[in-house]
Amino acid sequence: MTVSASITSSSSDLATESARSLYEKLVVLLKDISHINGISSLLGWDQMVMMPKNAEDARANHMSVLDATIHDMETSPILGALLEECERRRLAGELSNELNPYELANIRIALKSYRQETLVPKDVVRALATSTAKANGAWKEAREASDWSKFAPLLEEQVMLTRQKAAYMINGGVCEEARKINQKARAAQGLSDEDECYKGYYQVLVDKFESGFKVDRLQVLFADLKKDLIPLIAKIKAKNFQHENGFLKGDFDIKKQAEFSDKFPTRMGFDMDAGRLDESTHPFCSNAHPTDVRLATRYASDNFQEGITSTIHETGHALYEQGRNKEYVDTPVSSPLSVGIHESQSLLWERLVMLSKPFWTYALPLLKEQFPDRENLQAVDVDQFYLAFNRVEPTLIRLEADEVTYSMHIILRYEIEKALIEGDIQVADVPALWNAKMKEYLGLDVTEDRLGCLQDIHWSVGIIGYFPTYTLGSIYAVQIYNHAREEIPDWDEHMAKGNLTVLKEWLNKNVHESGSLHESGDDLIFGLTGKPLDSSLYVKYLTEKYTTIYDL
Amino acid sequence: MTVSASITSSSSDLATESARSLYEKLVVLLKDISHINGISSLLGWDQMVMMPKNAEDARANHMSVLDATIHDMETSPILGALLEECERRRLAGELSNELNPYELANIRIALKSYRQETLVPKDVVRALATSTAKANGAWKEAREASDWSKFAPLLEEQVMLTRQKAAYMINGGVCEEARKINQKARAAQGLSDEDECYKGYYQVLVDKFESGFKVDRLQVLFADLKKDLIPLIAKIKAKNFQHENGFLKGDFDIKKQAEFSDKFPTRMGFDMDAGRLDESTHPFCSNAHPTDVRLATRYASDNFQEGITSTIHETGHALYEQGRNKEYVDTPVSSPLSVGIHESQSLLWERLVMLSKPFWTYALPLLKEQFPDRENLQAVDVDQFYLAFNRVEPTLIRLEADEVTYSMHIILRYEIEKALIEGDIQVADVPALWNAKMKEYLGLDVTEDRLGCLQDIHWSVGIIGYFPTYTLGSIYAVQIYNHAREEIPDWDEHMAKGNLTVLKEWLNKNVHESGSLHESGDDLIFGLTGKPLDSSLYVKYLTEKYTTIYDL
Repeated sequence: MTVSASITSSSSDLATESARSLYEKLVVLLKDISHINGISSLLGWDQMVMMPKNAEDARANHMSVLDATIHDMETSPILGALLEECERRRLAGELSNELNPYELANIRIALKSYRQETLVPKDVVRALATSTAKANGAWKEAREASDWSKFAPLLEEQVMLTRQKAAYMINGGVCEEARKINQKARAAQGLSDEDECYKGYYQVLVDKFESGFKVDRLQVLFADLKKDLIPLIAKIKAKNFQHENGFLKGDFDIKKQAEFSDKFPTRMGFDMDAGRLDESTHPFCSNAHPTDVRLATRYASDNFQEGITSTIHETGHALYEQGRNKEYVDTPVSSPLSVGIHESQSLLWERLVMLSKPFWTYALPLLKEQFPDRENLQAVDVDQFYLAFNRVEPTLIRLEADEVTYSMHIILRYEIEKALIEGDIQVADVPALWNAKMKEYLGLDVTEDRLGCLQDIHWSVGIIGYFPTYTLGSIYAVQIYNHAREEIPDWDEHMAKGNLTVLKEWLNKNVHESGSLHESGDDLIFGLTGKPLDSSLYVKYLTEKYTTIYDL
Repeated sequence: MTVSASITSSSSDLATESARSLYEKLVVLLKDISHINGISSLLGWDQMVMMPKNAEDARANHMSVLDATIHDMETSPILGALLEECERRRLAGELSNELNPYELANIRIALKSYRQETLVPKDVVRALATSTAKANGAWKEAREASDWSKFAPLLEEQVMLTRQKAAYMINGGVCEEARKINQKARAAQGLSDEDECYKGYYQVLVDKFESGFKVDRLQVLFADLKKDLIPLIAKIKAKNFQHENGFLKGDFDIKKQAEFSDKFPTRMGFDMDAGRLDESTHPFCSNAHPTDVRLATRYASDNFQEGITSTIHETGHALYEQGRNKEYVDTPVSSPLSVGIHESQSLLWERLVMLSKPFWTYALPLLKEQFPDRENLQAVDVDQFYLAFNRVEPTLIRLEADEVTYSMHIILRYEIEKALIEGDIQVADVPALWNAKMKEYLGLDVTEDRLGCLQDIHWSVGIIGYFPTYTLGSIYAVQIYNHAREEIPDWDEHMAKGNLTVLKEWLNKNVHESGSLHESGDDLIFGLTGKPLDSSLYVKYLTEKYTTIYDL
């Protein structure tokens, strides 16, 4: 008998129970689900960092049994009955006096996730899984051959199945905004409920990663970014000038890099007794539990910037995980709010802190100490180092992009995937559209699809609606950063002295501990700053910084 | 829905199915159970080797949900129905023509384990768990204070509850031998089924760790050992002489030790692509899967022997795990046969191989290479090294005992725990009895209970019936080793050249791949050597070896 199964009230009993008693039963189930997902996260970490290579098949079998168990727990009828009874009372206005906002948020989040898990019929889920496996294989071949036609039919299938899934979620009430968009579009075009209409479908996909965030808001934020960033990028390009960065090139011993980088998580406030730092081919941060947060970084001997950047980026994620609300530990409200907010935490540290001059005022002497034999490094001052570390160079490859051009890569993908899902373009249109946008946004010519529309794994594994979170993360990061600077006196002095924990503590209090209490990233920002999310702050940050760096 | 739950035949359907179809359904369930237990094993490894210290509580919660899930799967009604239907057919003689011996063994083992899991009522299981937690705490305090009276009442409770558990298992038919012993004792004393009689209770406890092994056989084997080993130990002691071992003492850099030791697993045939080697406070070998076998060793800077001994011992276990039968992977018949046979694999490598002269003929030059600055080590030859490495020194502490005296520690514990469970002695009698036996067997005076009957954790965590497997392991090891030497030509030459994989391959074929096909360790030995298990071979090995070493 699982712990969950010990709660066996029938739904008729539930109607007579107090709100408090219902909630407490619910929390038992939600904590079990959190525990079993913690195991899954740990196995994921192990697979990336520790697992011997021959264990791949066995691990797939282990995960398959675990996934089935998780699915059982997440879709258990008693969980559904408890949640629906809570929702009934909430709609009747009976809950808000009985439960506090954190408790109400737990019910809201759990109901949404229960519906997401149960609304899509098994055959659709299975068809998507099969299609994804095929699509991922085809994408690898297509990228290798730089041949879109090898991937196109599989992407078409993915789009079709993703729309099916989206329809179940919209009809099941997972995302009110998506339903509204769809109904409005139908009314405008005079369509009945029977007619095909995919408007709003992208909204429900975005909602899965960026809960509660409206695509209409995205559209405005991204349009504003384009308006200002495209000219900024063009201006930098026109300068045709780069600061000297020879001292960052050449072989940096990996062991010595690690010795330098490994100290930063602790300096930033990461608790090594509640987590680990390892190496992995792909840097990541796992979240088995706030007391067991494991990050992995990587070093390249010929690319010094990559190692320290990965470590600080992943530590930003890790601090969010360790900073979860302790009072509501193991319940949904303690979880990070969204993918974009998570990314804001890593980007805030990576860009706003680590790419700044005060940071290197502190860190450059440590770096010089670590590499005493590198004469050109010993010779640079912090101004030269800062200029070298902040080069802007438009590139075709998203993963190599700098902070100025990165958003254009994202907006391009957002525009294409949204149009695809909503039926405004066809799969066959993607390469030409991609290349045209790349020319317009970054001034670059795509010579091969493997350097263009075939570069990313996302669409091949059914991840559509995720891309916007990268740029939302950047926008959130700047606005949170600006607010932190206002509230923390002597900011630059703290950074220059390496007092990095002052920021960690501020983020704990102002972002991490609120978890998923807010209904969206927009709400979090409004609650924190008293102003709506504003991409012009991001533009301002970039414009001021790079006007100086490139003397525009 | 778990994979298992997809099999939902009612038991009335089962009666009409073919044996093949029943078996195949069973295998699906058994593989799921194997997979989920693999996860548990992996988490166990992680906890010992990787887990950050603050994660202890979270991990306990994670394990609790996982354990409940495992219990659900191991006691599922459909599993029970399938097994009972198979058993009905086996008893009717209908299975042996339909299924092969490996398949029949799977049914036999799965039925036994299903009964073990389901026979004991939940309140007894719970009472034992609660009592164990208390007893372990009390034992720690008692050992600290060297005060038996602090532990005694808790041990009494453990004994009482263990007897309750044993009674359910005997009555449920888990161990036929135990039932026979009990009935014979009752008849001899003229007792009815209602009267208390604990004879046979120890048998069912032993059966859990050493499946199918008869306590009557144990009694004979151990009596023979005592007869010969007590005088041998006394003779060595009377010599009052030790070979020089100064070159093994003093500080050995741990990193260098690891460089030396870490190469042995691979040399012995351990596949690093299907496992790992790490360090841990307590050396162990985990068994998530034959393709994912992780061993952990430890080094002490002031005790060189400990590191290499741990590594080779655990690699012996690991080779057994990696050598499981591939055709029946993830089913019970591929599992190691018993705790004693597992121990035989580690002891065979640790003692018969690593404590031998041919091994050090190969390994000593490597050791000298690794520690070029240790002059006294550089000066020794293999004969001197061998003598130093094989010191015999009776000690009060089991964990520090050598291969000659170790068995006496075990026999002492076996005699006491058997008498306790079967009601021949009381908990209050233990210290005096322990001390008397220690004097008789090893000639040592126990001055404090913490160095005597309070030294081991086992009884405090409800592990009774396990101790004999250590010495059974030694006896098995020698008999398997002798047989391997007969079958492998030029044995000593192979060892002296470091051709260790010749032994690993022989063990794979002759021991590992048979898994749990045999009904007991006794049967395995008979099948392998054509002779019953024979403790005189162990005595002969020790007597010949140490007569030479100590010139007796």
